Parts: sequence; structure tokens; C-alpha cells
Amino acid sequence: MSGRDTRAYAEDLDRADEIAGFRDRLQLPEGLIYLDGNSLGPPPKAAFDEVGQALRTEWADGLITSWNSAGWFMLSDTLGDSLAGLLGADGGEIVVTDTTSINLFKALHAALSLNPDRAVIVAEGGSFPTDLYMAQGIVAGDNRLSLRLEGIDGDTIEALIDDDVAAVLVNHVDYRTGRLRDMAALTARAHAAGAIVVWDLCHSAGVVPVELNACNVDLAVGCTYKYLNGGPGSPAFVFAARRHHAALSQPLTGWWGHASPFAFEQNYRADPGIRKFLCGTQPILSLRALKAGLDLSLEVDQHAIREKSVALSELFISLVESRCDGLGLNLFGPRDPARRGSQVSFSHAHGFSIIQALIERRVIGDFRMPDIMRFGFAPLYIRYCDVWDAVEQLRQVLETEQWREPRFAIRGAVT
Amino acid sequence: MSGRDTRAYAEDLDRADEIAGFRDRLQLPEGLIYLDGNSLGPPPKAAFDEVGQALRTEWADGLITSWNSAGWFMLSDTLGDSLAGLLGADGGEIVVTDTTSINLFKALHAALSLNPDRAVIVAEGGSFPTDLYMAQGIVAGDNRLSLRLEGIDGDTIEALIDDDVAAVLVNHVDYRTGRLRDMAALTARAHAAGAIVVWDLCHSAGVVPVELNACNVDLAVGCTYKYLNGGPGSPAFVFAARRHHAALSQPLTGWWGHASPFAFEQNYRADPGIRKFLCGTQPILSLRALKAGLDLSLEVDQHAIREKSVALSELFISLVESRCDGLGLNLFGPRDPARRGSQVSFSHAHGFSIIQALIERRVIGDFRMPDIMRFGFAPLYIRYCDVWDAVEQLRQVLETEQWREPRFAIRGAVT
Repeated sequence: MSGRDTRAYAEDLDRADEIAGFRDRLQLPEGLIYLDGNSLGPPPKAAFDEVGQALRTEWADGLITSWNSAGWFMLSDTLGDSLAGLLGADGGEIVVTDTTSINLFKALHAALSLNPDRAVIVAEGGSFPTDLYMAQGIVAGDNRLSLRLEGIDGDTIEALIDDDVAAVLVNHVDYRTGRLRDMAALTARAHAAGAIVVWDLCHSAGVVPVELNACNVDLAVGCTYKYLNGGPGSPAFVFAARRHHAALSQPLTGWWGHASPFAFEQNYRADPGIRKFLCGTQPILSLRALKAGLDLSLEVDQHAIREKSVALSELFISLVESRCDGLGLNLFGPRDPARRGSQVSFSHAHGFSIIQALIERRVIGDFRMPDIMRFGFAPLYIRYCDVWDAVEQLRQVLETEQWREPRFAIRGAVT
Repeated sequence: MSGRDTRAYAEDLDRADEIAGFRDRLQLPEGLIYLDGNSLGPPPKAAFDEVGQALRTEWADGLITSWNSAGWFMLSDTLGDSLAGLLGADGGEIVVTDTTSINLFKALHAALSLNPDRAVIVAEGGSFPTDLYMAQGIVAGDNRLSLRLEGIDGDTIEALIDDDVAAVLVNHVDYRTGRLRDMAALTARAHAAGAIVVWDLCHSAGVVPVELNACNVDLAVGCTYKYLNGGPGSPAFVFAARRHHAALSQPLTGWWGHASPFAFEQNYRADPGIRKFLCGTQPILSLRALKAGLDLSLEVDQHAIREKSVALSELFISLVESRCDGLGLNLFGPRDPARRGSQVSFSHAHGFSIIQALIERRVIGDFRMPDIMRFGFAPLYIRYCDVWDAVEQLRQVLETEQWREPRFAIRGAVT
């Protein structure tokens, strides 16, 4: 076999890759190395047909009757059941609806409703901000409540969980560092203190095996447009373990969450099951594109995905460290692959400009403040040779200091 | 001219109709008379291209860069500005986002934030239920608050508004009766008592001229999939008058509503303008279909729409009363067209079965409990001869008592 830092070695790995064939199921621009599927996944080719059918057969021909005949009204449930198969949940424990932010609001309120005598929410100071913003919105509306943040005084999440804590909100994979938390252990720790855990799966769903019920998870939310390839802004999901359905409540009590939505009763009566997390009418075209993404993910074993994800990430780190040695990059986040999701971040003082130079070279990663270059490895369509080629482009940008060219310093709107 | 209850008269009206040409801009099934555009409008033909472009050029080719380059991130604002042109608002006073139910939650909270010393919400007992359910969810979360409903003791909305009232939530057009409220007068009445009004425009936007700022409206919400032809579950909108932007707040404080969403700050800081009503990432494919609907509506003068809407509705009532006389139908809702939106309801003890028999005859209306047959007249694509033909089918169903056939009595899920 070739030396491990050669392109020939990467090509060998591609030839041996048992899930390599899935790449053809997605529509990717020719010659682009897309390491930003952790932000927006590319379209499954089947999405074009799904949306076309929803537009032409169902909307144009079926009109209002498609709410029943095409299953639109139950799409939040049917897609939720698909997702349940992927995330180790049971049917009737997940709905696909609204946005991650709004589902965070529902899930946090649901956690508080299950722990009415407690008034503290614990979250991560370095969380993706919308998690904190939604928690802040809840706390601002009820002066009984307070928010404790990991990292403020150096405390870990575990150290912040005591008998006052109603809800713990944590990200399964951190959006900047890629750190992967131990779902079973942290859930058990919270339960030992009588707290309810809300897991944010935005950066793990579809790329890290998730076993919600095996880990005894209470509540979870996540988006579907990253590794699940659901399309720009495809609706998010919310999971609630069946054991909590009867007791929990959430305040976004719209008609879709009513036990009998078409009886048009004057008083709200929550659906007894997971539909109590629904609120208003859902965007069907976007849900139908997502169906193609979920169907595709369901065809692949999540452990095969994880194995390739780790191999891609490890190859990336090892190539960066061997081929870009001394060029100012520092690994940001866990080195141990068991503690990392499917993204790798490196810091560099000129990270923003370097990412711009890479984009011009058709290698797409992204930048996060203050100096983080983030690269996502989506095993469904990223090849080992893409990893090699990306590192080669990165090496050239750094070695030639191409990032100093003024056009790469322009800081416009950030994706 | 032919007698006013003949088909030839209806054909004369079609020939004289100056906006008749817009029908060709929508995709309608051959031979179907679709009187349910008040529930789900048909697709503008341009929607296929809009969504196709969003799928293939923007998502597939542009991937993550389309958030900026294709204007995805600002689509809630740009569509909101289009809608502002239609609804008598200014640019920067409307965003298109989330669902009507969730926007009701935001708007009611915003109203309460503008009136912090008051604790009563007034609404209509006969409101579309989700309005009540959302208000109930808010009241349930704060024991200081209470909800007063019109119709419980026979009181009008106006009689319920006193100095304790923080917010008045009213439908511009009632979903069952079609009753059209006087926006200017009721808003003035509420303001005289120091209350804030939230208008629900679901059944008026796109078919009744709306002048939000001329009527001094505070807040409004509405859906876009009825007369605006945005597609199944297309995102809803929320309006806030600019004079309230600085003072109001709402608790769904997600990252899209942050003053600086990509700074990833740890603390929420609301956008100073209408974007403070945004929360999470929006479903772009569904928004793009809606763009086609809004663009089409903007081409037509809303007063021409209203004139034809009244003429279609008046023709329908007069034909039902002349040609279906003695067959058990009673007009349900206002007879005066100045007090009616663009839908006409008739009650009949066997309304559900009659609607089913009409559907088999390719005339689509809908049914609302307990005995209401509802027919919507969308002037963009409904012809006067459609009105005549629909009444003829209704007459035949009633005269032959075809609704007695057992297959029409099946009550499945209702659209």
C-alpha cells in the first residue's frame, strides 16, 4: 500500500469503501469539494421528483383533497416515524415540524412542565446561540426561573446539575469544536439529580449513531438540513419519550396539536401523543424534499456511516498535521475520535481569509468566530480523495500565503 | 342582455371581466370548479419555475452560498415587503415566517408587552379555533392573565373592551360566516380604551383591500396559502406598525431575530426592527413557491379584485335563492356585501353529504361544523359561469336528493 499521506492511499480507501455508491444518489456540483454538509447538505436526486410530485400531482391536481389523499396532514408524523427509525426512538415519539428554535422552546417548556417544583435550566455557555436565546426568552418570561451556564466559572455541565435543576439543555455535538457528548452518561447523571435532559441533535442526527431510548433520553430536538440533506430550512424535529407524553405540556397550543383538530372546539385539548408538539400548518413542499433525505439516510447503516466519518476525519487531521506542519494551524476540539462528531475545526489567526481562498479553489468549508475554520465530513458523499485534495488546496493557500490577497479579506454576510 | 339567472348572463359578465386574463396564470384542473381557494389556493404557473430554480440552481448548484447569493437569508423580509405593498403597510413592517398560530403567539405577547399593566385579552368566541387556542396557551402560562370571549353572554367585541383590556384579537373575515369587520372603526374603538389590536387576516389578505396603516393597526397576522396562492402550508406573516418596534418584545427569541445573528453572541439582543419577529431557519422551498403567489397578486389592483369578489358572491347568492328555492338552504352570514369577505356559506342539515356529492360532480366547496357549506370566490381565477355551473350542480344534488346516497354520508378526515 502507498504511504498514508499520499493521494494513492486515499484512492485505495475509496476503492475499499462499501458505502461509496451513495455519492451518486446526491446532486453535487462537478469538481466541488463540499465540506459544509454540516451546515447545509446537498440535494438527494430523489428530492427533485418528490417536490415535483408535491407541486404538480398533489398541489395542482389534488388541491385541497391532498391534505388527506396525499398524506399531507400526517406528514409530520410519517417523517417523524422515519426519523425514529434512524435515532433509536419508537414510532409516535417524533414529529417533524417548525424550526429547531421553536422546538427548543416547546421542549424546554415540556421539561419544566415535568419538573414544576424546580426553576433552574442548565445549558452550555458555548452552545449554538439559539439554544441559549430560546432559554433566555423563557427565563425572561417567568421571574421564578433562572439559567446556569457551563463555562462561566469553569464548571462542567455535570457540576452544575443539582437538586434545583429542572432541565438540562445540551448539544450532542458542539457546533464549533465538534465535541461529542456521552448521551447515556450525561442523561443518567441528570436523572440521578431528578433533572430532565433536552438533547440538541443538530450536529449528530444522520452522522452519529443515536439511540434515544437506549440512552433513556427524555426530550430531543434537531434540524434536518445538515447531515439529513432535507434542503434549505427544512423543518426540524422534536422527540419526547412516550413515558412523558401524558404529563407534559407546552404553550404553543395551536390547532394542529389539538386532540381533534377538525372538530373546531372552542377550547384547546392537547393530543394525547407526540402531536401535542404540533402547532400550525406545516410547509409541505419543504417537508417533501426532506422525505427524500430521510429515505436516503434510512438505506445506510448508521454504524457504517460512523466508521467512515471517523476515518475521513482522522485522515483529514493526519494529513493537515503532516502536510501543513508549521503553517500556523492548530486543531480546535477533541483529538480522540470517540469524543468527536463528524466535523474537524482548526484555528488560524487568518481563518476567515483562508476559508475565502479555499472557496475560490472550490473547497467549501466555513468559518466561525473568532478564528475557527470548520470542515464537515458527510460520509454519504465525501470521498477520501476529497479529503486529500482539500488538504492539498489548504497547504497551497498557506504556503503561498494566498490568504493575504485583499479580495479574501472582505467580510460580508457569513453563511 | 339575458335574464339575470341564466348562464348566458354569466357568460356576458365573463366577457366584460377586465381581470379575466389572470385565470391563465394559475394551474387549474380541467373541468373543475374550485370554490375552496379560501382554504388552499391553486398554484400560480410561475411557482413551478420558482421552486425549480430554488431546487436546481440555488440548492444543488449554489449550496450553502445561496443563503447570501440567492437572498435566502433575507427572503422573510423581501416577501414581507411585497406583502406590505398589498396590505397598506410600509417596507420593514412585515416578515413572512413560521405559521399563523406561532405568529399569533408572538403578536399577542407583543401586544401584552406594549400594555404591561393590563391583563385581559379579548377574542371572538366563534373565532377560528387556533386563535383561541394560542390565547389560551398564553393565559395558561401566566395566572395574572385572563381571556374574555365575545358571544359567551351575547356581548359584542366592542362591549367587552374596557380599561382592563391589553389586547383585542379579531378576525378580519370570519372563517365560517364570511363576516367582514370594519378595521378602522374597531381599531379606533380599541385605541380609545387603550387596548392594542391584533388582526387576523387569514381570510382577507389577497381578496379584500387591506389598509393596515391607514387604519392605524398595531399588529396583524395571516396565512398565505388561501387567496395569496402560496402553496400548502406556505409560511405565514406578521405585521407590526413601526411606531411599536422599539417598545415591543416577544418570547420566541431565536437567532434569526437577533440584531447580529452571525456574531454568535452569548446573549440575545433583539433586532431593532420587524426581524425581532423571526426565530429560526425558514423553509426556503415553501417560501419560494409563495413568492410566485405574491408576485401574481401584486399585479392586480385590489379594488378590482374586491369588485369582482362582490359580484361573484352576489351572483351566487341570488342564483341559489332563485334556482334552489325551497330546497332547504339558508344563507349563513351577512347578506350585505359590504359586511362580507369573499366567501358565502349556506346551512343545510345534510350539508356534509351535499358537499361530498358536489365534489363528485367536480364542484369543490367545503364543510364546517355543524351544518355549514362554505364556498369561496377567488376573483383571480373563478369565472361567473363557474358560479352558474356550481349552482346548477347544487340544484341537481338537492332536487334529486342525491346526497341521500350512502357513499356521501361517510365522514372521514375533513379538509
